[in-house]
Amino acid sequence: MSHKLIVQKFGGSSLANVERIQNVAKRVAGYKKNGHDLVVVVSALGDTTDELIELANKINTEPSEREMDMLLSTGEQISVALLAMALHKLKVEAISFTGLQIGIITDTSHTRARILKVNTEKIKEELQKGKIVIVAGFQGVTPNQDITTLGRGGSDLTAVALAKELKADECEIYTDVEGIFTTDPRIEPKARKINAITYDEMLEMASLGAQVMQARSIEVAKKFDVPIHVRSSFSQKPGTMIIREVKRMEEVVVSGVTLNKNEAKITVCDVPDKPGVAARIFNELSGAGINVDMIVQNVSHTRKTDISFTISKAESVKTLKTVKKVAAKIGTGEVLMDDDIARLSIVGVGMKSHPGVAGTMFKVLAENKANIEMISTSDISISCIIKKKFAETALRALHGKFGLAK
Amino acid sequence: MSHKLIVQKFGGSSLANVERIQNVAKRVAGYKKNGHDLVVVVSALGDTTDELIELANKINTEPSEREMDMLLSTGEQISVALLAMALHKLKVEAISFTGLQIGIITDTSHTRARILKVNTEKIKEELQKGKIVIVAGFQGVTPNQDITTLGRGGSDLTAVALAKELKADECEIYTDVEGIFTTDPRIEPKARKINAITYDEMLEMASLGAQVMQARSIEVAKKFDVPIHVRSSFSQKPGTMIIREVKRMEEVVVSGVTLNKNEAKITVCDVPDKPGVAARIFNELSGAGINVDMIVQNVSHTRKTDISFTISKAESVKTLKTVKKVAAKIGTGEVLMDDDIARLSIVGVGMKSHPGVAGTMFKVLAENKANIEMISTSDISISCIIKKKFAETALRALHGKFGLAK
Repeated sequence: MSHKLIVQKFGGSSLANVERIQNVAKRVAGYKKNGHDLVVVVSALGDTTDELIELANKINTEPSEREMDMLLSTGEQISVALLAMALHKLKVEAISFTGLQIGIITDTSHTRARILKVNTEKIKEELQKGKIVIVAGFQGVTPNQDITTLGRGGSDLTAVALAKELKADECEIYTDVEGIFTTDPRIEPKARKINAITYDEMLEMASLGAQVMQARSIEVAKKFDVPIHVRSSFSQKPGTMIIREVKRMEEVVVSGVTLNKNEAKITVCDVPDKPGVAARIFNELSGAGINVDMIVQNVSHTRKTDISFTISKAESVKTLKTVKKVAAKIGTGEVLMDDDIARLSIVGVGMKSHPGVAGTMFKVLAENKANIEMISTSDISISCIIKKKFAETALRALHGKFGLAK
Repeated sequence: MSHKLIVQKFGGSSLANVERIQNVAKRVAGYKKNGHDLVVVVSALGDTTDELIELANKINTEPSEREMDMLLSTGEQISVALLAMALHKLKVEAISFTGLQIGIITDTSHTRARILKVNTEKIKEELQKGKIVIVAGFQGVTPNQDITTLGRGGSDLTAVALAKELKADECEIYTDVEGIFTTDPRIEPKARKINAITYDEMLEMASLGAQVMQARSIEVAKKFDVPIHVRSSFSQKPGTMIIREVKRMEEVVVSGVTLNKNEAKITVCDVPDKPGVAARIFNELSGAGINVDMIVQNVSHTRKTDISFTISKAESVKTLKTVKKVAAKIGTGEVLMDDDIARLSIVGVGMKSHPGVAGTMFKVLAENKANIEMISTSDISISCIIKKKFAETALRALHGKFGLAK
């Protein structure tokens, strides 16, 4: 077996108790014994981060973001120390570092900092001594030495950034599922694990509800062409490779089907059809910090048109209030909200070169009595908003139709 | 009230839950509102440190000291962040720092590091902005950026070192007792809080079993003449000042009576009375990392003598084994151990100028039927080893005899 530099990242569920920490140590030690160099990025143990947030909220419901980072970064620091101890127990040399000690330099946007620079001197030095280097994920430090955290999925980002800077041969993201699936196996038991998927497909899958990896880490991996291997820490089976281009034996048109039931649809009726009106509405929403997802506006045959868009259900009350205010100023018709909807999407790079995919999707939905309320497409995905009650049956039907089932 | 720079240190019991953290914040904020500048040093919340040690031991019973420091230093980091949040809640500006961020530079003796240098730039900068500065106690960093801890009582040491470097006007050590008492109030309800005590007396009291402050912090305070105020975080009453010289209205001969029941006595019988023999025994012990406390050797009338010494009861098995080995080589008589003993001591700078104190002590012990097995004296203390069963009665008798009772 050839000598490789491997970056491995283990999430909180892989480190939820002493036994799991020991299992991670055994796995890492096994790679080391096979002659590889290892940099291991870890998250906080189990639910530590949530527990710390809860503790902070008991003291201050609006804690300072700087102090929140100071608090939360202890979670990963505990993990690195314990994993080092577990490796020492196996007689394997290992050394732990915080983000600050490594020099993962970020901007000053506490709780959602962006990485500016990753120093690798310390890591290289310790690797040369034959040690496994354990790095606290999710955290960095500003040029002024304030501790920052990278936001949701931050440990994945740490791993990807280190893999890039170290020119690692592999970047393995260990999680509690076996990889990326063609769809949610809890809804469709025939869902299959995908062996390889492109960054772009994964980005669509991530933003469309697949929970495994955050979009941000995949964007960085794509930007710097870091191949990622998403796999289970509870199994030895290979998981899913996320890479630039997938050479498939046979052409795959659709790679996955995703479902998002956490959105609500807002419709502004009878909007005056003249320039600048849509801008006023959506500027108001972005000013209020509301993320808008799909937007649909039909060609108008009169002087008025309807504009529909979707938002996260959690923001529906705030959105409705904001939209009603601006709608009154503009002089539109009614503002309607529907949170009984689901977003069903098919994703696949193959659809670029295969006309008729959309037609097939719409036909399947029709066969399942699901009326399409909104449609939105990208190069490699098609999303439809339908009533929630049809969503799961339609998902299974699409999954079968596009040949994804086992 | 004049403007002062005050260093305050709060121990784990003062921060054991959300309510106590809020109480500490209120107290600190009160000082700030009175116009003082504050640097607050905190320990880990409640039993956090013990819990982390327990967790580490589940993974590795002999954890690396570097990793142990990495792990344990998270305890104080959690405390600083939470206290900052609690102060913000009170609309008081505050900012937290770890030992590393402040630049509390230590040597590389992990788990018991010695402070080499304390940087104060960051603290001064933030004080100038009108902020309360919260510093993680107990921790430092090596010149190579490895996190260290300062050993038992380390947070007190952090506070004293900062008070010295910042030339603070006051250094308050908050604890769960009201100050230093003339003796243990659990044994003698008539024990009185001492208003002021010298460093030297406190050093004797500390090394003789008083639990409030570790000897190390007092030595540093003495060296740099930092006055310390030991007081309760649960009360507004003044506690005990520890200072260079105490001006007392009337002369006090004995300041306190201490009792230590955690020692064992070892006697090596019939030791050849020639040069170098005692050295061999005690070198062997120090080589094995055993701390010897009192040592007594009587004048010999034959060619042989008995050597007795005391050690911590926790080390008695190890000590016995070590001593028996060296005793066999030297060719001594029996090696005996007695752990049914107590060390009773009186402490007071006044005894320097008052002859007859020792006689009074011995007489009180005799009146209480306590046979004296060993005697050891310093400039400002007299200690006697007696059978444990007489210890508490004798302590109360001494406390009364030297006029310490309420």
